[in-house]
This record gives sequence, structure tokens and C-alpha cells, in this order.
Amino acid sequence: MSTTITQIKKAYDAAPRLRAMSDKQLRQMLLMLADELEKQQKSLLKANSLDLAKQDPGNPRTDRLRLDEKRVRAIAQSIRKVSRLPNPAGRILEKRTLNNGLRLEKVAVPLGVVGAIYESRPNVTFDIASLCLRSGNACVLKGSSEADHSNRAAIRIIQQVLRKNGLPAAVVTLLPSEREIVQDLFTATQYVDVLIPRGSDELIRFVRQNSLVPVIETGAGVCHVYVERKADIGKAVKIVVNAKVSRPSVCNAMDALLVDESIANTFLRQLQPALGQYQVEIFADPAAYKILKGYPHLKKATLADFGREFLDLKCAVKIVKDAGDAIIHIRKYSTKHSEAIVTEDKKQAEYFLREVDAAAVYHNASTRFTDGEEFGLGAEIGISTQKLHARGPFALEKLVTEKWVIRGNGQVR
Amino acid sequence: MSTTITQIKKAYDAAPRLRAMSDKQLRQMLLMLADELEKQQKSLLKANSLDLAKQDPGNPRTDRLRLDEKRVRAIAQSIRKVSRLPNPAGRILEKRTLNNGLRLEKVAVPLGVVGAIYESRPNVTFDIASLCLRSGNACVLKGSSEADHSNRAAIRIIQQVLRKNGLPAAVVTLLPSEREIVQDLFTATQYVDVLIPRGSDELIRFVRQNSLVPVIETGAGVCHVYVERKADIGKAVKIVVNAKVSRPSVCNAMDALLVDESIANTFLRQLQPALGQYQVEIFADPAAYKILKGYPHLKKATLADFGREFLDLKCAVKIVKDAGDAIIHIRKYSTKHSEAIVTEDKKQAEYFLREVDAAAVYHNASTRFTDGEEFGLGAEIGISTQKLHARGPFALEKLVTEKWVIRGNGQVR
Repeated sequence: MSTTITQIKKAYDAAPRLRAMSDKQLRQMLLMLADELEKQQKSLLKANSLDLAKQDPGNPRTDRLRLDEKRVRAIAQSIRKVSRLPNPAGRILEKRTLNNGLRLEKVAVPLGVVGAIYESRPNVTFDIASLCLRSGNACVLKGSSEADHSNRAAIRIIQQVLRKNGLPAAVVTLLPSEREIVQDLFTATQYVDVLIPRGSDELIRFVRQNSLVPVIETGAGVCHVYVERKADIGKAVKIVVNAKVSRPSVCNAMDALLVDESIANTFLRQLQPALGQYQVEIFADPAAYKILKGYPHLKKATLADFGREFLDLKCAVKIVKDAGDAIIHIRKYSTKHSEAIVTEDKKQAEYFLREVDAAAVYHNASTRFTDGEEFGLGAEIGISTQKLHARGPFALEKLVTEKWVIRGNGQVR
Repeated sequence: MSTTITQIKKAYDAAPRLRAMSDKQLRQMLLMLADELEKQQKSLLKANSLDLAKQDPGNPRTDRLRLDEKRVRAIAQSIRKVSRLPNPAGRILEKRTLNNGLRLEKVAVPLGVVGAIYESRPNVTFDIASLCLRSGNACVLKGSSEADHSNRAAIRIIQQVLRKNGLPAAVVTLLPSEREIVQDLFTATQYVDVLIPRGSDELIRFVRQNSLVPVIETGAGVCHVYVERKADIGKAVKIVVNAKVSRPSVCNAMDALLVDESIANTFLRQLQPALGQYQVEIFADPAAYKILKGYPHLKKATLADFGREFLDLKCAVKIVKDAGDAIIHIRKYSTKHSEAIVTEDKKQAEYFLREVDAAAVYHNASTRFTDGEEFGLGAEIGISTQKLHARGPFALEKLVTEKWVIRGNGQVR
């Protein structure tokens, strides 16, 4: 058994101890963790400065890696928020008595051991640990070597709190940061119940292609807003601008705008100054290009610009014939994340909401709302674009599995 | 694009047409399928005889492959039963209005395209197709080459019915039976939403190790019955005998019996004649061996006999100190399928039900009840021993995913 597998097995062995804690104990442990984090922030910031010292300060990754007092306070606050969320484990999902007298219950229970592989942000260590602790799950964490000092300091604080609460430290286990150890995680089907990659597309693809442990994928968003012929132009401009510019670097930002041909002229002319204010670069199809001629940041779209996640102040624009045409386009290019229609025609709206296959579909609202906090689910691990187990915001409520509990008095089949 | 991928894409393109059907239409289509199957059974039986002619009649696989009038009638009846099950798609799982006025709904919707890879039984073609059609899912099926004539005849009947209902035949697609084509299925993440292997452990492992499409695994069952010190001996004998002998070849049959040391003597002496009647071979640990000495089918257990799925009139027996000891043993050897405790002590029972991590946990009942029909869920695809999406009987109700539908009036973030 490799050292890593031994570590993973320890987390597996420790998991039942955590499951035995009461809801109140779990909440209090998280509050204690938030307090300890604030008390011990010096040690964390010191460790973080060792990680930062190895980085090129100009690199955007360096900012993601950086912790400061404000960020630590934000982490502590987010742990306190998680402590206030209801524990998804323990809920009775179904209850039934069979004709033979057997009493059946389907109960939500913790998954067991959650594995996570993530990149430079050290706050992820606290995010995942607190969500797992709240829901009674042990976890094994694999951070990046860039953040290793920070992650180890984080784990020291977390494990202190675990011990103070009478739990084995292995309940939250930090694995070595060397890349090779992921192979042990990928094959640990006996001990790890789900593996969550969090970071770049490349990381997510690598995990999906190699893990034998089931993966929950939080993927890229190629999101569309379709402005239908009966759209309220004012609303449409507001929604499109918000979906594009309010935070272009995130997965629920709009990437492509589809406009009904019958209102394309009117709408695009009104949209132009609004997007121009933010210097949004537009990749337009031939029909849209004609209308937008004169817009200072206009490019001709290539085929590759549709289906592209820009993560930037850029978007593709295409003129479509009708809702059916828009739906076909979305079906082809969307990553099934968030898709919106803007219209005052209820029938067309319902048709779009029904036909478009995505984690979140919107009528007259910005795609930017796809988010655990916004939906009232609390902190999320990411937006799942797969269809099994979790779809859309992957939050605390999904860190459980089901268990059938059957009580009888001697029944046989 | 390979021919197979083209076929898979056709199923994907056809899926929305199926989703647009009403619940009544879906039910009636299944009833029509059952009728057509009975009407056209000659063509199916003829095709089946071509498959059978290639087989060694002495091979047990040949029996699994065989269809006859009685089996066809059973398939038709099971299709009718599926038609009566409630459609899991369309249910509203959550409904909420946010402070900003956005109206949120989480709705159950069909997965889209279900892929299935299975072995010789031709009834699986009808089983999977009918469950998929009932829940609004298209499917792509890959049967074995042994059953290819039968499967093609089955698909001809199914596709006739689809066409009569105005649907594209591609809604239920049979892929070529050559083994190599599974590679196309494994990588078709764009078109296939879930892949279900149904058959041997080897097949399931192969699919899990190679598929990029998410897999739902229906695995082996190493099931335990623990007879606690406060067990009612009569009940315990009845439950153990039933769990072992009522159908030893299935995954919910008992593989290992754990007996509390304080009642081992009394209990095993009463169990002995009951199991002896069925000539159950016992692999006993040293303590049980002593008590059972004289039992005609007694062997000394090796370590490998614990954690072994016998699928036969065989079982392992071990004496344990107490419930804690039993739970530790189960945690080590179980496949997390079905586990039972027999006791009149409610506290010990609840402790066992809580601590044992399995898809189904039983108090005073046989493990043999773990089954979709028994649980009232209808026909099942198998018993899922994984924890994501479906756990325990994997039936119609799990052939859906979720979709967040958000209705607004211009909200931006």
C-alpha cells in the first residue's frame, strides 16, 4: 500500500466517527473553525507569503494564490454561513409500508469520503472542508504544489479544531501536492465515493478521463441569450449587457447573443452604445455585421466563435429566423449551462424553456443568476453541467446519497 | 464521423421529438408495443432460433438467450406494467420565489439519450427500450453478437411502433453488435448522457474503466446477515434460510452469516438441519467450524471466502463478538448492497441500521427484498451499488435529470 493510499484509507476509517456527531455539534465545530481561522490568521498568512515568494508577481495566478486579512475574514464568514445551512443528511426522502408489512424509508445520508483535486486558490481548502464537515462527509484534498505552504497551514488549523471536537484529524486529509499521487486517488474506489475536480477545463478533462472513482464535473459555460421578436427592447438591452459585462470571467456570463431577424435592426442599434461603453468586442455573423457596421470593436465571426467560452469582454452575435432556429443553434453549441430568452410572448417563452436542454433556462432574466447563493442553496462547489446526481449549482444539498432502511418482523420473500 | 457516431447522433437529434409527446401518448405507445410484440412473435422467435442454432445447447448462456412463447408473453406483460408506472419526468421538485421576484422551479426532465451495453438476454432490449420510452428518453443499445438476430428482430418491431406514432425510428437505436463499436459509445459525451452496462462483473468493470460518458454501475452484492444476541431464533433461521436459498444466483442473496458468540451454539445447531435440507455448503471460521462439526457440507473458510459473492448454495459463517465487531467486518467485506440484522433489541437494530453503509439495510427481514418491484418502484435496470444519482434499485424514477427553470421580468444581477 502506498503512503497516499494509507492516508486515504485513514480518512475512510475516520468517516463513521464524523457521521456519529449531532447536527448541533457539526454546526458548533464550524463556528469554532471560523473563530480559530481568524485567531490564527498570522500563521496562515506567513505560510501564504512563502508560496507567494516563489511566484512571478505579474502572473494572474499569483493573485488567485494571495491571501490577506480581508480574504481570510471572507473565508471565515463563508464558513459561518455554511454552519447555518441545513444539514442535507438525515432527511427522510420517502416513507412507505409495503403490503407484507415491511416499513421502507429512503433516507439521505452522507456520501462518506469526498475527494477533491484543485488548483491554486487556498480558500478552496476551507470551502470544501466546511461543506464536507457540515454534511458529515470526510474528505481527502489534493491542492496544487504552488499553494502547498498555505494549504498545510490551513489543514493544521482545521485538524486542531477536529481534535478539539474529539475527532480524528484524518477526517480532513491533505494529500501530498505532487502530481503523481492523483493516480492513487483515481483508483481508490474502495475508499473514495466521489471525486470533484475544481479548476481549469484541462484539469477537469484529465480527471474525467482517468478517474475510476465517479466524478462530478463542473464545466465550462457557453451561454446564449436569445432576443425574440416580441422582446421588450429595454429589458433585452439591460439583460444582455448584464449577462456580458457584470462579470465576464465567470461561467454563467453570456458568450453568444442570438437576435430574431425581425427586430435585429432596432435592437442591435440600441444595444451598440450600451456595449460600446464597456468596449465589448463583437464577433458578428454576416447579417449582424451589416447592422453593426461602424461599431468600433467589431469583428467578423468565424465558425469557432460560436461555441467559444470567451471569459472576457467579448461575445458572438448571430441573427436567427425564429425561436426554432435559435433552439437548434443552442442545441449545437451550448454546453448546457445557462440559456435565456427575452420576450413578452409567453407561449414562445414556454416553448424555449421546455425545448432547451440546459442546467438553467431563463425567461426575461440574466444568465448571471446561475449560482448556489443566488438560488438560495448556499456556497457551491461549482456549476455541474452533467446530468447525473447534481445539475446546476452543486451545493451542500448534493453532498449526500440515499440509503434504503427497511424494518420488518421476520419477513421473507 | 464513423457510422456508429452518425447513428448515435441520429438518436440525439431524435430525442426532442420524443420529449414533445404527452404522457398519454407515451403510455399508449407502450401498450401498442406490447400488442405488436405478441402479434409478431413468430418473426422474433424465428430470428431467435437463428441465434440459438449457433450455440452449444449445453451452455447455460444458451438458456439465457432462448425465447419462447411464454417468455415473449412475459416481456409483453412487463411492457404493459411499465406503461402503468407514473412518468418521472415533468414532476416539479422545488418551487420558490426569490427576493428579487425571480420564480424558480426545479423540474425533473428526461436525461436525453441513454446508452446501454448488455450481454446475451434479448429481453433486455425490450426492458431498456420500454423504460426509456416511458420516461421520454431516446436510447442507443449495444447487445451481444450472440443475440444479434433476436435483437434486430426486436428493434424492427419497436421501430415499427415508433413510426406508427409519428416518431423517428432513431429514438430507439440498435448499434452494430461488434465489440469495437463500444469505443464510439465511450467517447460520445456530446450525444449520450449516461451509459448503463448490464451483465457480468467483467463487462461492468470494462465499461467503468473506459467510458468518458458517466456510468451507472449495477454491481455485485456481497451481502451479510448478522444474527445478534437478542435475536428471535425462529425468525433468524427463517430469514437466513430465505436469504440464502430462495434464489442463490442473484445479487441480493446472502453470502456471509455473522453470528453473535453468545448465541452461536443454540442458533447454529437449529440452523444446521434447515440449511442441510438444501445442501448448502458452509465455509466456517474456526469458532463456527467447531460448533458445526458433523454438518455434512462443512468446509474451513479461507480469508477469500469472506468478501466472496457465491451466487450458489454456499455461504461463509463467522462468529463475532458483538454488533460493533459485525459492523467492522461488514465495512471491510461488503459491496454496500444489502445488509441485515436479526434482533429483538431495537437499540442494537437502530445502531446497525445507522452505522452500516449500504444501499439497503434491513432489520428482521431477508436481504432478498432489495428489488425494484418489491420496493414498489417497478421494473429495475439493476441494483446500483454506487452512491451518485441512483443507489439501490435503479428503476424508472431515476431515468431523469433536473433542470432549473427561472421566470423573471427583466431581473439582472
